Amino acid sequence: MTLSFTIHSLLLGFATIVALGCAPSATNPPPTANTPSIPAAPNDALVQFSVLAALAADDYTDGAPLRDVLAAGDFGLGTFDRLDGEMILLDGKMFQALADGTVRPANLGGTTPFAAVTFFKDDGRRDELSAATLTHLEEQIDRQLPRRNSPYALRITGEFTEVTLRSVPAQSPPFRPLVEVVRDQVTWQHRSVRGTLIGLRCPAWMGTLNVSGYHWHFLSDDQKIGGHVLACQFEHATLRYDDCSSVDIRIPQSTNFDQFDIRHVTQQDVEQIERQRSTSPKD
Amino acid sequence: MTLSFTIHSLLLGFATIVALGCAPSATNPPPTANTPSIPAAPNDALVQFSVLAALAADDYTDGAPLRDVLAAGDFGLGTFDRLDGEMILLDGKMFQALADGTVRPANLGGTTPFAAVTFFKDDGRRDELSAATLTHLEEQIDRQLPRRNSPYALRITGEFTEVTLRSVPAQSPPFRPLVEVVRDQVTWQHRSVRGTLIGLRCPAWMGTLNVSGYHWHFLSDDQKIGGHVLACQFEHATLRYDDCSSVDIRIPQSTNFDQFDIRHVTQQDVEQIERQRSTSPKD
Repeated sequence: MTLSFTIHSLLLGFATIVALGCAPSATNPPPTANTPSIPAAPNDALVQFSVLAALAADDYTDGAPLRDVLAAGDFGLGTFDRLDGEMILLDGKMFQALADGTVRPANLGGTTPFAAVTFFKDDGRRDELSAATLTHLEEQIDRQLPRRNSPYALRITGEFTEVTLRSVPAQSPPFRPLVEVVRDQVTWQHRSVRGTLIGLRCPAWMGTLNVSGYHWHFLSDDQKIGGHVLACQFEHATLRYDDCSSVDIRIPQSTNFDQFDIRHVTQQDVEQIERQRSTSPKD
Repeated sequence: MTLSFTIHSLLLGFATIVALGCAPSATNPPPTANTPSIPAAPNDALVQFSVLAALAADDYTDGAPLRDVLAAGDFGLGTFDRLDGEMILLDGKMFQALADGTVRPANLGGTTPFAAVTFFKDDGRRDELSAATLTHLEEQIDRQLPRRNSPYALRITGEFTEVTLRSVPAQSPPFRPLVEVVRDQVTWQHRSVRGTLIGLRCPAWMGTLNVSGYHWHFLSDDQKIGGHVLACQFEHATLRYDDCSSVDIRIPQSTNFDQFDIRHVTQQDVEQIERQRSTSPKD
């Protein structure tokens, strides 16, 4: 019982870390009798390579070929072998945002221990969207999205007044838990840059599979700036969203993955996660 | 945090109820350095319709068409609209084991709030398997299956010295939580009957999605006896197993499903689950 408690605590904490203060599953408006039932397109899957709990446990290598990821979607986010940067998949092109602040096309001969992608199809949009903070942005999207218990892919294009990004350096064995790795994150801030937010919102029931709530990466239009989004501010942007009707979890066939123990993760890391959260910058 | 604790407690408790005393995720042998890495067949998905947490929350209706389930696999288990009996899918034929002890071919015009199916492909087998109890059976399978963190479909054919089955009667609104419904289960015992155990073993990381550990249904060769297995005993049977390389979760598009709150479930039911478990018959 205690173990169950801690894994969820870990993942909730991790979600908070990666999305910095966003806990949409807790802030979603309660469902009402007139919640619309909008059918999502069939086969509009969110395809996940591995699960978040395994990544949190330090399963950073022997992952899925990047070509398999590209075959499963044209839009999404993730990481690379040994956590070597942030993955950005946009319009079928995969980019790698490295810890030195550079962005490059991903070497498709590589692998990933964790990625979540979909073939992006518009199910809805909103123009003239402005946001002062990530929290402000997410509150607005919470009010816009029709369904609470489906995952959504989100893309927001426009001119960003300010965006704060992070990436992490490649890790070497023996691997540390993710909660420790993100303490070494490198962050940088840009102003007045045109680009796209690549986002996911996952429902609370996916909490052990992916980041419960929001998770955002960014890529500038000139493809020179990118990373995991810690904070942003923009005006007059356009949001488009894709309601995913299924979640397809590709299970890594590595001994690494098979050795991950969801109970073991939590025991090691939950207290550190909590400390990390309390010192995180605010958006 | 308390909520996270209780949902996992609920699901662990539920798993224990449905599989009666089997907690394979806790009893699996620890991984060793020489754990074999056996690649599973590509596209060998375990396809789930909805998630266990929603079923536990009483999302019993407006589910997936049974024809969609049949299109996704030829082997598996589940339930029916309003929990009207136990679903058995074997060799592409779907049966409904009702609470009056009868078994009939399912009416394919119906729907299901929860089912998990796959196209069964042999990845391994074991002949001359004997088991004195379900627990004894599962301990043997734990030692046999190569991978800990992949789901397996399991079929065991032979002569059963004894098998204790249950089904539940169809529910009417307002629906009660699953933990209360199973208190009304009808059980019956048969001796010396030839048939097949239709089983799944799901890894611990799937705990909110499906029954973590083992889950067994039964169908006699003459298709007249079937249900959810509470206890069994057999000798000289044959086990065949199918290692599933992905989990494909089809998200119900109903307002029912969208209104389920994983946090709400736990608060209502966890204590009742614990009481139920303590009074469950032993296998």
